Amino acid sequence: MDKKITNILKRAKKIKMLLTDVDGVLTDATMNFFTNPNKEMLEVKKFCAYDGLACHMLRDAGIKSAIITGGNAPATEKRAASLGMDFLYYNYLSKGPAFKDILKKTGLKAEEVAYIGDDFIDMPVLLQAGLACAVKTSIPEVKKIAHYITKKEGGRGAFREVAELLLKAQGKWPKTIENAKNGNIGKSPKPTLQVVNYKQK
Amino acid sequence: MDKKITNILKRAKKIKMLLTDVDGVLTDATMNFFTNPNKEMLEVKKFCAYDGLACHMLRDAGIKSAIITGGNAPATEKRAASLGMDFLYYNYLSKGPAFKDILKKTGLKAEEVAYIGDDFIDMPVLLQAGLACAVKTSIPEVKKIAHYITKKEGGRGAFREVAELLLKAQGKWPKTIENAKNGNIGKSPKPTLQVVNYKQK
Amino acid sequence: MDKKITNILKRAKKIKMLLTDVDGVLTDATMNFFTNPNKEMLEVKKFCAYDGLACHMLRDAGIKSAIITGGNAPATEKRAASLGMDFLYYNYLSKGPAFKDILKKTGLKAEEVAYIGDDFIDMPVLLQAGLACAVKTSIPEVKKIAHYITKKEGGRGAFREVAELLLKAQGKWPKTIENAKNGNIGKSPKPTLQVVNYKQK
Amino acid sequence: MDKKITNILKRAKKIKMLLTDVDGVLTDATMNFFTNPNKEMLEVKKFCAYDGLACHMLRDAGIKSAIITGGNAPATEKRAASLGMDFLYYNYLSKGPAFKDILKKTGLKAEEVAYIGDDFIDMPVLLQAGLACAVKTSIPEVKKIAHYITKKEGGRGAFREVAELLLKAQGKWPKTIENAKNGNIGKSPKPTLQVVNYKQK
Repeated sequence: MDKKITNILKRAKKIKMLLTDVDGVLTDATMNFFTNPNKEMLEVKKFCAYDGLACHMLRDAGIKSAIITGGNAPATEKRAASLGMDFLYYNYLSKGPAFKDILKKTGLKAEEVAYIGDDFIDMPVLLQAGLACAVKTSIPEVKKIAHYITKKEGGRGAFREVAELLLKAQGKWPKTIENAKNGNIGKSPKPTLQVVNYKQK
Repeated sequence: MDKKITNILKRAKKIKMLLTDVDGVLTDATMNFFTNPNKEMLEVKKFCAYDGLACHMLRDAGIKSAIITGGNAPATEKRAASLGMDFLYYNYLSKGPAFKDILKKTGLKAEEVAYIGDDFIDMPVLLQAGLACAVKTSIPEVKKIAHYITKKEGGRGAFREVAELLLKAQGKWPKTIENAKNGNIGKSPKPTLQVVNYKQK
Repeated sequence: MDKKITNILKRAKKIKMLLTDVDGVLTDATMNFFTNPNKEMLEVKKFCAYDGLACHMLRDAGIKSAIITGGNAPATEKRAASLGMDFLYYNYLSKGPAFKDILKKTGLKAEEVAYIGDDFIDMPVLLQAGLACAVKTSIPEVKKIAHYITKKEGGRGAFREVAELLLKAQGKWPKTIENAKNGNIGKSPKPTLQVVNYKQK
Repeated sequence: MDKKITNILKRAKKIKMLLTDVDGVLTDATMNFFTNPNKEMLEVKKFCAYDGLACHMLRDAGIKSAIITGGNAPATEKRAASLGMDFLYYNYLSKGPAFKDILKKTGLKAEEVAYIGDDFIDMPVLLQAGLACAVKTSIPEVKKIAHYITKKEGGRGAFREVAELLLKAQGKWPKTIENAKNGNIGKSPKPTLQVVNYKQK
């Protein structure tokens, strides 16, 4: 095994929470807006079914999942809750403080958190996370500082790919497959999603 | 003809119902959500016109069509009803029980049902269906246990491709083409869609 | 010039109306549905800006444009009206009668109408139209009976491509370019859209 | 450095405002429409997260951003305001007068404005702008008159690419990267968006 892969697996083994950006990672970076007749702005978030199942697989394996996003789409909160994610930090264009807060709330060390990003505003967290992941469709500057670059595009299974990497590195993949064949994915209890809005602070 | 194709055609000849997953098969696996001003979550399902016509073609040829989905989008029910499908089982993250129930309700044997899936939660049904199909965009574990892998992607005609395979294997394709040229597709009567919600049971 | 191109241009010269299917031609064949909280089904049509401008260019050059669709999305009617199209026939799964009616209403001969389609239900019209066009993403059976196959995909400029073919064949392209440079596209008066619903008849 | 690149950089150095079309540049040219139960037409605009951050980066660097669009989607106004853009001219199928007005309002010379377009209606402005840019997905006639053709497609980061070109040509890129690493992107104050509706004039 080459040194780079050895390093990625070594980092992946320690991870207890998979933290992710939304736009460009859980979505294909499209920002889909319309206004209703009352001129209220509504946003359609284009998530991916493969990533949804990955949240259940992580939870079943005892790995937390969470979001830090610069956006503020209400659909993101509803989706995160229904998938059994642990935290949602939104309205964070400056993501460093959110990362600090999440470590404090969970008692995790930075090296126990993996983060997936794709653009400039993800850099402060990527520079600290134990496993820094850039999606295939990231800007080059972000790819340069990442430990791992996904083969899948944002919104097309990049989050799922990192989740599988963690499960495999931690020896939890055979149990996941067994659950799949027996129809037992997603049966572990869901936590209450904790939501933090930066602008309201 | 090679052994693999012979096996697929032999299986396809016996099929009396084409059963399918939704997300990733009838759609491209995007999960498109927004909330209206009352914070109610709404989901846009991205179906495909080619698959819609395939439902009419199957019905005209006496082959049933049905859905088992882990999701719960109301648009799926409306679409299935308008296309003249026979069954919709939803909220089934664990799809084995739904398959058992559908066999009981229809009196069909497992070997008379084809199933199309793309992800882990489809495995319990794929392992039992007479013709197990994986879409091109499926996860590798699902492709490995499928008899047939589509050339088309999910949401881009994969269901249509399997429907045509069934019609051709059963010698019903020339009649379908004749109906097409004469403007007679979709003229057979539509059944009442039977809907089963797992969570309400 | 080879015989096939000569034949296409000869046919294109006579065209006075560009008639088109919607799903798979003016769109990418996705059928995007959601239901609002009152369980009413709403459909998002994914049209293309390039095709929109093509309608204005045709009208400026004295060529009519019209739609025959098997669908019934209200957005199609609003879009057709705003683009200055002449006719919209909807709910026509069997398109032959609509074509007959449109010839009667306009006094045009079949050889003066070009039609663009992509699937089985377009075959009855394609077999009669003066210039039968299939989009790149059409089913093979439709491509086989078409005079012209577009290089562009449905919903990605296929209609525009046929519109340009007509304008070029009829020597109207230089005037179109001149209008473009002078900001004069779409200045000709719009007709009142005539709408015919098959199911109400 | 070859002559063409030298010319582009020379032009880029003078730019004080990045002006852009919407459909096909800030979006992928899809026009996504639906009607609500009251038959009101609603349009979903498919913007791109990468372009959004580019608006903040330009503002932080003292470069204005603005829109001239032939469309009239209310979501465009809300998006432009939230991104801190300076002007929105809409309902301008004939874009020359809007460009003239924007020069008058800002006191800028044509050579100080870059414009990004993709179709015929952008030609009058492209023929005057100091840096005329065509997106990769533009029609050939527009590419022919452009100084610069983007590598990215419309709605997939083309605007961002031109913004970066300006920042790099003007020596402002290192400061942008520094802001990114420190979580300081988008911290400069936002102007009030000035909105001009052509049809109401």
